[in-house]
Amino acid sequence: MIIVLKPGATKDEIDHVTTLITDLGLKPVISEGTERVVIHVLGDTRSAPVDQLDSLKFVEKAIRVLKPYKLTTKEHHAQKTVVEIGGLSIGDGDFAMIAGPCSAESEEQVMEAARHLKKIGIKIMRASCFKPRTSPYDFQGLGLEGLKMLKKVRETTGLLVETEVMDVRDVKIASEHVDILRVGARNMQNFDLLKEMGKIKNPVILKRGMAATVKEFIMAAEYIIHSGNKNVILCERGIRTFETAYRNTLDLSAVALLKKDTHLPVIVDPSHAAGRRDLIGPLCKASIAAGADGLLIEMHPFPEKALCDGAQSLTPDMLKSLTTELRPFCELMGKRL
Amino acid sequence: MIIVLKPGATKDEIDHVTTLITDLGLKPVISEGTERVVIHVLGDTRSAPVDQLDSLKFVEKAIRVLKPYKLTTKEHHAQKTVVEIGGLSIGDGDFAMIAGPCSAESEEQVMEAARHLKKIGIKIMRASCFKPRTSPYDFQGLGLEGLKMLKKVRETTGLLVETEVMDVRDVKIASEHVDILRVGARNMQNFDLLKEMGKIKNPVILKRGMAATVKEFIMAAEYIIHSGNKNVILCERGIRTFETAYRNTLDLSAVALLKKDTHLPVIVDPSHAAGRRDLIGPLCKASIAAGADGLLIEMHPFPEKALCDGAQSLTPDMLKSLTTELRPFCELMGKRL
Amino acid sequence: MIIVLKPGATKDEIDHVTTLITDLGLKPVISEGTERVVIHVLGDTRSAPVDQLDSLKFVEKAIRVLKPYKLTTKEHHAQKTVVEIGGLSIGDGDFAMIAGPCSAESEEQVMEAARHLKKIGIKIMRASCFKPRTSPYDFQGLGLEGLKMLKKVRETTGLLVETEVMDVRDVKIASEHVDILRVGARNMQNFDLLKEMGKIKNPVILKRGMAATVKEFIMAAEYIIHSGNKNVILCERGIRTFETAYRNTLDLSAVALLKKDTHLPVIVDPSHAAGRRDLIGPLCKASIAAGADGLLIEMHPFPEKALCDGAQSLTPDMLKSLTTELRPFCELMGKRL
Amino acid sequence: MIIVLKPGATKDEIDHVTTLITDLGLKPVISEGTERVVIHVLGDTRSAPVDQLDSLKFVEKAIRVLKPYKLTTKEHHAQKTVVEIGGLSIGDGDFAMIAGPCSAESEEQVMEAARHLKKIGIKIMRASCFKPRTSPYDFQGLGLEGLKMLKKVRETTGLLVETEVMDVRDVKIASEHVDILRVGARNMQNFDLLKEMGKIKNPVILKRGMAATVKEFIMAAEYIIHSGNKNVILCERGIRTFETAYRNTLDLSAVALLKKDTHLPVIVDPSHAAGRRDLIGPLCKASIAAGADGLLIEMHPFPEKALCDGAQSLTPDMLKSLTTELRPFCELMGKRL
Repeated sequence: MIIVLKPGATKDEIDHVTTLITDLGLKPVISEGTERVVIHVLGDTRSAPVDQLDSLKFVEKAIRVLKPYKLTTKEHHAQKTVVEIGGLSIGDGDFAMIAGPCSAESEEQVMEAARHLKKIGIKIMRASCFKPRTSPYDFQGLGLEGLKMLKKVRETTGLLVETEVMDVRDVKIASEHVDILRVGARNMQNFDLLKEMGKIKNPVILKRGMAATVKEFIMAAEYIIHSGNKNVILCERGIRTFETAYRNTLDLSAVALLKKDTHLPVIVDPSHAAGRRDLIGPLCKASIAAGADGLLIEMHPFPEKALCDGAQSLTPDMLKSLTTELRPFCELMGKRL
Repeated sequence: MIIVLKPGATKDEIDHVTTLITDLGLKPVISEGTERVVIHVLGDTRSAPVDQLDSLKFVEKAIRVLKPYKLTTKEHHAQKTVVEIGGLSIGDGDFAMIAGPCSAESEEQVMEAARHLKKIGIKIMRASCFKPRTSPYDFQGLGLEGLKMLKKVRETTGLLVETEVMDVRDVKIASEHVDILRVGARNMQNFDLLKEMGKIKNPVILKRGMAATVKEFIMAAEYIIHSGNKNVILCERGIRTFETAYRNTLDLSAVALLKKDTHLPVIVDPSHAAGRRDLIGPLCKASIAAGADGLLIEMHPFPEKALCDGAQSLTPDMLKSLTTELRPFCELMGKRL
Repeated sequence: MIIVLKPGATKDEIDHVTTLITDLGLKPVISEGTERVVIHVLGDTRSAPVDQLDSLKFVEKAIRVLKPYKLTTKEHHAQKTVVEIGGLSIGDGDFAMIAGPCSAESEEQVMEAARHLKKIGIKIMRASCFKPRTSPYDFQGLGLEGLKMLKKVRETTGLLVETEVMDVRDVKIASEHVDILRVGARNMQNFDLLKEMGKIKNPVILKRGMAATVKEFIMAAEYIIHSGNKNVILCERGIRTFETAYRNTLDLSAVALLKKDTHLPVIVDPSHAAGRRDLIGPLCKASIAAGADGLLIEMHPFPEKALCDGAQSLTPDMLKSLTTELRPFCELMGKRL
Repeated sequence: MIIVLKPGATKDEIDHVTTLITDLGLKPVISEGTERVVIHVLGDTRSAPVDQLDSLKFVEKAIRVLKPYKLTTKEHHAQKTVVEIGGLSIGDGDFAMIAGPCSAESEEQVMEAARHLKKIGIKIMRASCFKPRTSPYDFQGLGLEGLKMLKKVRETTGLLVETEVMDVRDVKIASEHVDILRVGARNMQNFDLLKEMGKIKNPVILKRGMAATVKEFIMAAEYIIHSGNKNVILCERGIRTFETAYRNTLDLSAVALLKKDTHLPVIVDPSHAAGRRDLIGPLCKASIAAGADGLLIEMHPFPEKALCDGAQSLTPDMLKSLTTELRPFCELMGKRL
């Protein structure tokens, strides 16, 4: 940590800071600049309560030099995380193509979606049973009933199934019914939920919050790993900006940066980012080229009957063509789709 | 709802839309423009599943005309909400000045803060027991132990006490220990938490999410009221923008709009918005002038010892002067501080 | 400037940096932390070309400690700037109430607006002659003809007149026809225009760019002052965020910060920020309470006939009532309206 | 255009609106909904001054149905724009790889950069002579002297040269010295500059403003084309968001949308978007995959000596490897690099 004092800080004030630093078991190194004094704090400031130094009235700012990560980044943990599930090695060459309806709506719809995925050759099905809806008057999901449908899909088709959990009280039951759990964008900093996710063994897809920085996103993954579950897959799904031509702005710089700095698999959800079907193809290709290890795509047997997010769902035929188009991009990036 | 078709939509396509609309129990009115056909959908489209119309390939866009609110806005519920607590009528002239440390850190600190508030004449104390921290390595709050300290403050000083709840499993116990519960910015769309807040009787301060639109903010309040608790106080606390000179950008246009469109009391948290002590005075004055019914301000007996957010905490002396400065602004706005 | 090296930087790499620093006439001070080496660069780094240090592959980041300002901030220039014009001392107690139509549309409209302003007691009239319009098909302003109308208003009514200039080639002629020139938000970083503004003597209102940080805003003012014109008035007019309920998000934290850090007068344009008439009253009050030295408000004799921005224009009656309501807030802040 | 009236609008108010519409030569169609009256305005509302309808006090909102574009979109102009220059057909299969230093700094540096580009097989060199710098104390560019250097590069190497123009007074001279002119992000809505660009014949690269919507970006291109120059190339270069891990957030959804809706070539500048060298490779690949017709990349013979933006410049070796890596992606997209 570096402490920059305001111009004109007195010797007493400098002493006050250095005493506080020494009291925390850290070592201050003073350097006097042209207009300001700068103090470099030596020692592991990562978990020391040094924030309050910023509140001293003669301190201009305190700048952290150490990054706050311990478990998620290559700097501290060189070996990459490979999520092994159902014969797939996600993060190690197997491209995680995950598709399916936004919500589980009925057994018929879920089974129909599964049949299409099998035919296309996609191995993981998504479908939400608990829906985070902006309005209390919108469809809230089938809950436990939906989880049972997904379990049945798994048993009858051999597909892996994936679903979102929003409530800490649902983590355990969901982990028993599906293969992969998802933390939605709105819950990226629901820290109690992250801690519960750390107590299960299922892989967890952690979606980036709509207004979360990459740093906060990594720290949220750190919560899950720190609580005991190393099987974390990061998912970029667009951030909220001033642009209104699409629902959110897909941030592929984040994908590139996460692949560079962390050892975790990174996937992309272009469907929720775009919120419109016509941009999904190009965004899938761009995601793969940016280094993504997988995609999360909405497909609905009959988009116009979807109870939510119909406008962005692909039809089974569209998904089939898209998958064919994506294969050469995956190959170029050394991944198996 | 208005459905705008793409240029060149055929008669069959128009029929397809009108049939879908009729099947939903609604009435279509067709109007042919110079380049496009527009269909106005009559009937209560508020909870009808009309979103999927947007997914038809010959539809350009579907525009909702009815606002989705039922319980929060003056349009549907003319009488203003007054939160009556401890002799205060918040939303009806009594200015809700709420101050105290970011976190409850020890009984001594909490009691010391309470003593200062009493001396200044402030009637509601804030202090968090459950802390939403970006890093799992940062102080996570005292939990139940903290709740007990707050209860003791209430019993020994007569102050009202306010605290944040993050986990659905803590709502009941917290509601028994403190007067007012708070939903933090990160949990504004934690819908299960909102529903639990609807089951208690305590007033609930709902903070706006860092990237939440005013519309989403109102819909979150709608969840709580719809679940049974009408005592909702909205709190603007800054939104996330590109500006980095302060932690967040306080949005007083939102305060003006919420006061105009909803019947709920609206307060402002300038401390978390600014993240720096030197802007709090002007932002408090501006909030009152914009129409706020209260303020949520951080005060710490010894900011440089604070376990979090020290940089933005006022000292007791600063809070005292500030309160004196704010009084004439409250008077001008017809409020009692 | 502080240079943070990557973990594991070698002695040769450290030497490479220190040599570069020494070659620039500056002095490096090395401090070795737990995981990283930090180099504090002593000397005036403000105009030294030190950015490239950031590009060395073993440098993690270079952090500037000195602020880049020389002419705009209190730190370098303690005395406040008072813009003296037409008997007003803007920035020294005289509240700069500026109102009028978005555009000059006809002599009749401009004269009618002026008559209303005189009656209300407002001393400065705004009206744009050159319009920055998003579409080439929208009304582009009356140009020189408009300037002549404004000159006539000045001569016949004694009002001060204010207008925007967009093209460097129009600065001189505009400066001869009106009292105060304005640089619009879209041109805040049109550096050639800023330099031309530095060559005239008229006061210049510099509007903040829609996506400009406070730091960039101050640097734009620095351009004008550095080019020779000290009469700069800063104008906050809302920034672009994700919120769509109003056109832009008025940033009153910026007003508070600019008043604290710079010696320049600061005014607010709530009309363009809100883009809707119903929020202007509360935003005017909040602006005054945040410390603003003036307001820029749209008023049109007949808003529904306005050729642009009618939705946000006040009628003369509304402006009159508003002015009356604002007086006590100005008084409380020690300003004369 | 669709006009939504407020609930409870009276017959007189409805008549008032319909009269205004009729007076503009348009035709109103009234439709009465459950809670509100909606009026659909028939006729070409694209350039009619209908905005003021929004300002009537019983109007809730006015929604434009027609898009404001006439010249830039496929809907109005089906044939794609191909920029033919120096034997390249940009927008028709020839991938526009443009590279070079941020600024022209000296003849030696410019010639050295050109030699490297020739060796790598890149045909267009970029170098700015007029620099838009946030601070007046930073290097402002070589101006005319720089233009002469670029002309010499063109004459001695056969490379095409590209540079930015900021001042309307420099457009003509620059158009005589270089092949391609660029409008920088800060000037995207400098409408006088756009109009001057419409008067020359050189291809113009128009960069998206940091806070410009896709719609505003297209409208800026519309200005240039409307003023007479059809050779417009759009350039996505990142938008300003809350994320600080990179300088700007590259928006590849915009690339996909611009390719879909307009007939103009679209290129990407990953260097200025990222502001850091380590993300440029993945972002180039992603841009190509998203459909880009070219790239604008910074390369400096000696990045650590660059007078600006050194941190993001590639070395000649890096650029050579990158170009080799990009070729198969171009091939996959049917483009020749």
